[in-house]
Amino acid sequence: MKIAIQGLGRMGMQIARKLAESGEHTVIAHNRSHEPIDEAATYGAVKAYEKADVIREFGGDQVIIWIMLPDTIVDEQVDEWLTLIPQGSILIDGGNSNFTMTQKLSEKVTAAGMHLIDVGVSGGVWGYQNGFCMMAGGGAEGTFGIVEPAMKTLALPEGAYHHFGESGSGHCVKMTHNAIEYGMMQALAEGYHFLKEGPYKNLDLAAAGEVWQHHSVITSWLNELCRDSLRESPELEGIDGYVAENGEARYTLEAAKELGIAMPVVQASLDVRIASQQGEVSFATKLLAAMRNKFGGHALNGEGAEPGVREQIAHEKSGNEQE
Amino acid sequence: MKIAIQGLGRMGMQIARKLAESGEHTVIAHNRSHEPIDEAATYGAVKAYEKADVIREFGGDQVIIWIMLPDTIVDEQVDEWLTLIPQGSILIDGGNSNFTMTQKLSEKVTAAGMHLIDVGVSGGVWGYQNGFCMMAGGGAEGTFGIVEPAMKTLALPEGAYHHFGESGSGHCVKMTHNAIEYGMMQALAEGYHFLKEGPYKNLDLAAAGEVWQHHSVITSWLNELCRDSLRESPELEGIDGYVAENGEARYTLEAAKELGIAMPVVQASLDVRIASQQGEVSFATKLLAAMRNKFGGHALNGEGAEPGVREQIAHEKSGNEQE
Repeated sequence: MKIAIQGLGRMGMQIARKLAESGEHTVIAHNRSHEPIDEAATYGAVKAYEKADVIREFGGDQVIIWIMLPDTIVDEQVDEWLTLIPQGSILIDGGNSNFTMTQKLSEKVTAAGMHLIDVGVSGGVWGYQNGFCMMAGGGAEGTFGIVEPAMKTLALPEGAYHHFGESGSGHCVKMTHNAIEYGMMQALAEGYHFLKEGPYKNLDLAAAGEVWQHHSVITSWLNELCRDSLRESPELEGIDGYVAENGEARYTLEAAKELGIAMPVVQASLDVRIASQQGEVSFATKLLAAMRNKFGGHALNGEGAEPGVREQIAHEKSGNEQE
Repeated sequence: MKIAIQGLGRMGMQIARKLAESGEHTVIAHNRSHEPIDEAATYGAVKAYEKADVIREFGGDQVIIWIMLPDTIVDEQVDEWLTLIPQGSILIDGGNSNFTMTQKLSEKVTAAGMHLIDVGVSGGVWGYQNGFCMMAGGGAEGTFGIVEPAMKTLALPEGAYHHFGESGSGHCVKMTHNAIEYGMMQALAEGYHFLKEGPYKNLDLAAAGEVWQHHSVITSWLNELCRDSLRESPELEGIDGYVAENGEARYTLEAAKELGIAMPVVQASLDVRIASQQGEVSFATKLLAAMRNKFGGHALNGEGAEPGVREQIAHEKSGNEQE
């Protein structure tokens, strides 16, 4: 199939690369700045510096555009596309949008005679190597089937993607995934913090991490990343303990409160991150930052980190913070 | 090597079986009731109905006894052994004892001219099949080396056991593992609860669990168990939502408070379990019970569950609740 990728940040670039290198699809690479487009071309993608170039590459046919942008700019980008693309075109929001925003956006896109599919993507920066994990929703009957060949290429082995239903359901499942992620990370961070400063001094934390990866109950990818971080630096040197958050846990908590669903662990995890941004740092928050760096390539320190307050995320940022 | 196992409950029996079936060790099986001893004999273990039988099997040599009992009865059992065993004998506490109790017990055992090694065991009821994950501590210089051949047999592949240092350090690492486990379980339970009763009705929760097992950030054994539970029964039918707790998270929190280490997620996880025992049940607590059943064979419902209050654990219980 022919598919355009807009937003060649950490995740967008890998998706474009995996699709292009498969040889099964024509990938059209589009981005605000040109350098990532040129990089994508080295993987076999077709360059499209301007939106008009994207549309031209589809030769007047309905377009399929996978948008990998921070959720704060998805709405305005969709507005621009709607003035340019042919009826029946398919837009995919592959970012971490709040599902309530996705629902509204879908109404607008549908009213304009187009389709919106929402896809939450996990797998961090390792997706290119391991295959991506994708949670989809939205689109009229049959629409998802049109984009499914791209999903199949990205999500190897089988079972790594699923279409959950109505518009926003993919983003809702992804948002929930991230909320769980916050809680699991915090549980690990608290445990290692306790071992580090607890009753036994100089415990080999990396050895604990290694043992726990051998069929213990907490065997997990996140624990593996803790082990690796602690092997590299038992003191987590050079990490200031500032932990960013991109909104997904907060969105989940907002929705949960409206519905009367208690999520005390997710709430506590978010609180710790917010406090870390105000200087309450510890070995635990350093380990949180180390984990985020390992799975998502996120900045290790506050200086280079994404702003903690969602609204401050710079519009000019073309990358997409995915977890 | 020759080794006796006392306490043939869920975990003890599997340890005895794996050691006996390896053909590398002589396993002496001892238990309060006789049926489990007879079962162990079918796996190749030597029967020892009485403590005197255990000692006789060692032919007057120093004995090595691996005690797999609830921590509430370990102390009195050790007292009994100390009156019977030869100097230089090795006792292994393989249960979930609080490390502070282990330290005190070690002093007593050492003063009597014996050795105490503490080993925390994880891997749930799957240890026989997958290999056990073991966290050890204590013993004089060289003592651990004497029991290490048994560890090697139980902990396959390599890397699944480690001796962390002073007396109690193995139990401390295991206790911390369980505290992390509480937090990770609660994070998953909250997420699935949100999806179940959240903005999208009839979401396929098992499909979410399956997708998340494919290189998502929360890929973990616990999520795999959630997926399996939800596949078997999307409504978690027949589970009343009572969640037992065996003390490890509580011990960790007590020690952490003394040291001024914040563990809000572990605390919240424990609070949810305690509340569940007072009737505050939900889809989340049902899923917690389902996970515990999957990894540890624990009772699904309150009626058959271990008492929530540690002190109530019946002394006559010969099995060992391991996580």
